Formats: sequence, C-alpha cells, structure tokens
Amino acid sequence: MERTLIGETPKLVGKTVSLSGWVNIRRDHGKLIFIDLRDRTGIMQTVVIPDSKEAYETAKKLRSEFVVEIEGLVKARPASAVNQDSSTGGVELEAKKVNIISKPEGELAIDVSQESLDLKLETLLDNRTLALRNEKIKSIFKIYSELLSAYDEVMRKEGYVEIKTPKILSSATEGGANFFKIKYFDREACLAQSPQFYKQAGVSFFERVFEIGSVFRAEPHYTTRHVNEYIGLDGEVGFIKSFQDVMDELEKVVLSCMDSISKNCQEELKKYDVVIDESKPIPRITLVEAAEILEKEFGKKLENLDIDAEGERMICEWAKKKHSSDFIFLTNYPTALRPFYSMPGKDPEFTETFDLLFRGLEIASGGQRIHDYNQLVENIKKRKMKPEQFKDYLDIFKFGIPPHGGWGLGSERIVQKILGLGNIKEAILYPRDVKRLTP
Amino acid sequence: MERTLIGETPKLVGKTVSLSGWVNIRRDHGKLIFIDLRDRTGIMQTVVIPDSKEAYETAKKLRSEFVVEIEGLVKARPASAVNQDSSTGGVELEAKKVNIISKPEGELAIDVSQESLDLKLETLLDNRTLALRNEKIKSIFKIYSELLSAYDEVMRKEGYVEIKTPKILSSATEGGANFFKIKYFDREACLAQSPQFYKQAGVSFFERVFEIGSVFRAEPHYTTRHVNEYIGLDGEVGFIKSFQDVMDELEKVVLSCMDSISKNCQEELKKYDVVIDESKPIPRITLVEAAEILEKEFGKKLENLDIDAEGERMICEWAKKKHSSDFIFLTNYPTALRPFYSMPGKDPEFTETFDLLFRGLEIASGGQRIHDYNQLVENIKKRKMKPEQFKDYLDIFKFGIPPHGGWGLGSERIVQKILGLGNIKEAILYPRDVKRLTP
Repeated sequence: MERTLIGETPKLVGKTVSLSGWVNIRRDHGKLIFIDLRDRTGIMQTVVIPDSKEAYETAKKLRSEFVVEIEGLVKARPASAVNQDSSTGGVELEAKKVNIISKPEGELAIDVSQESLDLKLETLLDNRTLALRNEKIKSIFKIYSELLSAYDEVMRKEGYVEIKTPKILSSATEGGANFFKIKYFDREACLAQSPQFYKQAGVSFFERVFEIGSVFRAEPHYTTRHVNEYIGLDGEVGFIKSFQDVMDELEKVVLSCMDSISKNCQEELKKYDVVIDESKPIPRITLVEAAEILEKEFGKKLENLDIDAEGERMICEWAKKKHSSDFIFLTNYPTALRPFYSMPGKDPEFTETFDLLFRGLEIASGGQRIHDYNQLVENIKKRKMKPEQFKDYLDIFKFGIPPHGGWGLGSERIVQKILGLGNIKEAILYPRDVKRLTP
Repeated sequence: MERTLIGETPKLVGKTVSLSGWVNIRRDHGKLIFIDLRDRTGIMQTVVIPDSKEAYETAKKLRSEFVVEIEGLVKARPASAVNQDSSTGGVELEAKKVNIISKPEGELAIDVSQESLDLKLETLLDNRTLALRNEKIKSIFKIYSELLSAYDEVMRKEGYVEIKTPKILSSATEGGANFFKIKYFDREACLAQSPQFYKQAGVSFFERVFEIGSVFRAEPHYTTRHVNEYIGLDGEVGFIKSFQDVMDELEKVVLSCMDSISKNCQEELKKYDVVIDESKPIPRITLVEAAEILEKEFGKKLENLDIDAEGERMICEWAKKKHSSDFIFLTNYPTALRPFYSMPGKDPEFTETFDLLFRGLEIASGGQRIHDYNQLVENIKKRKMKPEQFKDYLDIFKFGIPPHGGWGLGSERIVQKILGLGNIKEAILYPRDVKRLTP
C-alpha cells in the first residue's frame, strides 16, 4: 500500500491506510497496546487489539524509536477522548498489520517522547541527533527553516539578487585576529568572518544583494550568545540617501520575517508559549541617547559609550516599556568602535552605523559605508593599516560605486530570542564552540 | 525627486522622472550627447541637448562607469529607432539635469559596455568586480540566483526542511585526503567536503531535509569543471522503497528548476542564445549498459567501468540522439568506486547509486545509503577503516532510521551547462582554485 502521512488522516476517517514512522512511545493498557506513531507531519495514536494476532505479536516487541509501518483503519475518537492540542487528536488508527522496518541498537540515552526534555545543555548536545527527535526541539528548526525562507522571499521581493561569496580568503581582509587559518595547498589562507567586502562589490554590479551563508569567528567566547560558526543573513543596498535608508530596509525585512513565522509556525510557537507581536515601527535612538537613558532609568554608566550585554538588555527593557517594541535601533556608534569602512557622521567622532537589538540581544549590525576611494584610503591610513593590503577591496571603489550600506543579521540569534532559549546553541543543529566540534 | 527605475520607464512616457545608475557608455553625435544609463533593471538611452546648459556641461565630463542621477522627460522613440532586443528599447530620456554621484579613479581595465567581453578567462577573473558589470556576465548570476530560489521552492513544496550543518569538523569524516585542515584554537580541524553525515542524521528527525551550503574540496584539479569551493544543493529523503525513489525525487527537483529558469530568465538566456527544452522523463541506464553503448557506438572501452569526462560527454550525446534528453541517469556504480555507506545491490559488486549527467557533465551524485547499523559497521571494516573513527556517524543508525537516500548537486555546474560556459569558474562570482584566492 502507498504510504499515507499522519497529517492527512483526519480527512480519511473510515478508510484503511498505511502509515510509516517512529514509535514515539508504546503503552500497554490491559489487553490493548497503544502505539503513538510519529512521522514528519505529526503524532497519532494507534491501537492494536489481540484479535489482530500477527499485528499484536509484533506490537509486543516494539520499543521507542522502532521504525514501523502500520496498516489499519482510521477512526474518529469519541468526543471525550479528543486531544485538542494536536491536529490529529480527533482520530486514531485501529491497526491491522504491523511491520518493523528498522530498529534501534541497544539503549537510548534520552526518552524523546516527553513533551519537554529537562536536561542539561551539554547532555542535549552530546546526544544531539537523538534529542532532535523530540517534537519541541524539532519546532526550533522548523521555525529556523521558515526564517530562512522568509528572509529569502522578502529580499527577492525587494529587488535583491542572491549571491554566494567565497569563504576561503587569501588574507585576513578586515584586519583583526578573529580569523581561522587554513592550510590551502602550499600556502596559508583564512576563513571568511563576513561577506563584507564581496557584498559591497555586489552593490557595484547588482545594486542590491543578499547572502545566506556560513560565517566563521575565531573568538574564544564562552557566552550564551556566541558560537564560532553561524549562518549570517547579509544584505547590502546601493543608491541610499543616508544610513536611515538602510535601517528602513532592514526594518521591513525583519518585520516581514516575524510576520511569516507568526503566520506559518503557530503550532511550533505554541510549544514555547510564545506570541509574536504585530509589526510596528522600530524606535531609533542614538547611542548617546541610550547612554543617557541607561544612566537616568537604570543608574548604569557606559564607559566610552561601549554598551555591554547588560546595557543591551536594559535598553530593550526600556524600549518595551516606552514604545511597546521588542526591537530597537541604536545608532551613531563611536568611530573607535566601528570598522574603518564605516561612514563618518557630521561629527567625525561618530559613524553612520547602527545595531538592531531584539528582546535584549544584538541581532544585527550595519550602517552606511564609505564609497569614495580617497576617503577610504585616508581612513585606512588613519587606523595605521596599509592600503596595499586592501588592494582588491579598494579596487571596488576605483570603478564608480554609489552611496550604499547594509547589515549582517545573525539568523540563530533571532530564533533564540523568538523562543526565549537560554543559549544560542539550542538554535543550532550541531553548534561549534571553542570546545565542541562534535557530533 | 524620488528615484525611478529604468525598467519602469516604458509606462511613464510624457512624465518627468529621476533615474540613477552608471554611465554604460557616452557617445557624442554632433551637438547631442547620448548617455546609455545602466541600473539594476536595464539600460536606457538618455539624450542631452545643448539647450539644457548645465546638464550639457556636466554630460561632457562623463565617462564610462560614472555614477549619475539624471532627471528628464520620458519620450517614446520613433518606430524606426525602437530597439526590439531591450525592454526599454521603445523609450528614451530627454535629460534636463545631470548630477554626478560618484566617479571612477584612473583608467578602467575593461570596457564593460560591449555586448560580449572577448577576453581570456584569467583577465576576466583578475578584473572580476569590474567585469561583473557587463550585462551578459551579470546574466549568469541572475540565472544562478533564480536556480537557488527554484531549488529552495521545490524542496519546500515537496516537504523537505531546510537545514544548515557545520562546515568545521573534528576529523576527516568520510576518510580520504581531500580535506582542508584548519587551526581550530589549540587543535586541528577540517573543512566539510559534504554535509553527507549531517543530512543523513537529518532524515532521522525530519525525514526529508535539504541544504544549500558551501562545500570545500582540497583536490589539486586543473580542469574546466573543478573548483576548490562551491555551493552544493543537497537533499536526503527517508522511507524510500529503493534508490529509484531517490532518482524520482531528484528528477522532479531538477526539472522543476529548469522550468523556473526557463520561465523567469528568458532575457538572460537569450543573451547566450540558449533554449531550455520542455521537461521530459530522464532516461536511466546502468553503468554496465553505458559501457556497452560506449563500446558499440563510440568504440570506447571503459577500464573497470570507471567512466571519464570523455565517456560522460559521449553518453550524453547518445542520450540526446536516442532519447532527445539533455539529462541521463547512470546507475549501479561498482562498489569499489563508491563510498562505504553506499547500499549494495543484489550483486554486491555493484551499488544502488547513480550519477546524473547534463549536457556532457556529471552534475549530481547520489544513491541509497546503508541504514542498518551492523551492516554499516561491517562495511567500514571491509574497507580497512576503523568503526571507532565513525562513532558519531554510527550513532545515527543506533536509534532507528528508515531506508533513505539522497544526492549532492553542484549548483555552478548546472548554470555552466545551461549557458554552455567553457569553464565552471565563469559561473562563480569569485572562484577559488589551486592558484586563485583573489579577488
């Protein structure tokens, strides 16, 4: 028989179907054996009665995570037994044939059938492939998949061309020490810690580009918001009038992603008791204003305007209270804290840049870039770096390029904060940190 | 004035608009100055007449690749002057104001306004950022962007969840020497040369997964079809009956991508005089059959059934002649030529695997995988490898996993072959080979 997906069964009451999936859990109630069967579309209760002799004998052997094929009759459950929380809670399968497709070897370290896995993060990550069978944990990555799709969709709609740029670089282009080094045949190379230079080049031929790609950071961080490999959602846009235009674009994009997730992931969000607010304009304040608010409202003083994780949480708290917004843009970061290619403001101590914060965490960084060749050369020299080291990058600005800017969004941080996950690693299938390169 | 895109002008005859873009080329005809203006939506002829004095003086200074803003009146061109090849060929702009936004420094190495850049590949790649402004070269990457979108769309439609898997690995998981080594803090790690193990794990929790991601191969190849970094379009599907199901899936996916490109990239395809055939079923022959055909039709003998680039070209020629198909599946590769995880056929000398060829080139490789833990352990031992080295991988099969298989598609090869490009590097924005890590 052709396979039927569990999600389709509510429309098939009275029909005989063949389901395939995993045994989420087996329960024996007197003579009856109940098997909660799990496939990619949901979980469904199947009942095996002793009269179906062969099926019954097989069912007795089943344990959690056996892969099985069950043929049977779809029946409506009595009103009193309907499970309202599940889209298949109104039906069950009366099994006629049970066939074992594949079975586990040895003991399972985790019981994934529980609603919520109350385990230490390290245990969850050590047993990652198994833990990912849990419906609640799976929800994280359904939302993640939706985010990727939503970002792709809104960027294309707004006229951005998707590009893929190299991750192996000849040198540490942006300067700094946070590059992983590779042995590249007979020489040394680096892993890209952002597509910055290539997406700026992209503006010079496509005006608007976006990339969804791997980002590698050799920073020895041990925090709940850092990992050493993640997926960046980058965008870069030309012909802007000011860096406010860049924020306008990013605001549109981020809010559109939130709308898509809210619309298409209701069941997944519910597992985390999360509601996504309706879109509203994102407040924008300068870092100087933020510092004043922090001092006045929270008694917190910023050293050299360098806002830390605590400051970011507080300013988000303020944005929520004052503007009922989960998001806030902090703008005009000091020149000393931003890369050399940042467009200076009218006061050259500050830049035309911003961070986007969401529920206490920085999720994006961006701004307008310098597009004048000579100004860029001067800025490189001012930072005591050598323009010769930036030859390929500087070439972009020799050919005529419009005013432009862009952003880098951390995809996993968005999902972390939507679901209120304690650690970014929970939002990554197989996270990489200083200590962890497995599984 | 608000910016108008060139692509919108055909609907705005009689209106005054402000365009922004690059000077594709400036031509002086007697007193008139013609500027072909280029933006992301197309190229449009603008005319500057001496009466518009200030505009005329500025226009005299313009050279190729100046970034400008031109305000003027949209006029219909006389029937005799309409350029049928361009969507904006029916209109021109009578310029009133010309404003220079940004200008090139020094000489440009390439004249990108030519219809086709007749330059050596090395010259094109050395001057990549500039060359990418050429409309014909840009078309390659509009088609590439469409391919990414089409793949994403069809995979989601078929129930696949998008995943992102780590590119930094603790060890050379699949064995072999084609891994780049990284210094990862105080130890050594490797760059992923495929998401193989992680996507198989993905089947164990999502049944159907896909990934669009970077692939790194440390192979010292010097061919027209190899690079050391590319974007793989991977897919993996569970609950298959045989590896024919995997080919069914891949066939659906590839043909759907071709349809999307054919439908949405007509203008780009025309630049390369390319027509994409209507979808038809893809022929499938075993490698043994292919060897017979090669010997009979082309007098070519295969050593140990190891088909080379020439053999692939010939068998595609045969498929085109015999089945009018640009595609062909070659199936049942010898065990000795396939990785240890390949499902053996009834005759254990052969595997349940395939390659997909397109217009003379292998664009995908795939097959059914072994899903039984003990069989897999045996196969690892048979190959003189140690099961302990594959612990994390083997764990996947300890938890119960259905029969499954999948493929890895080379995204750039598809575009290379659609457009008939001589070298895969032409289909990559900034390609990486043994010698080249710049720009």
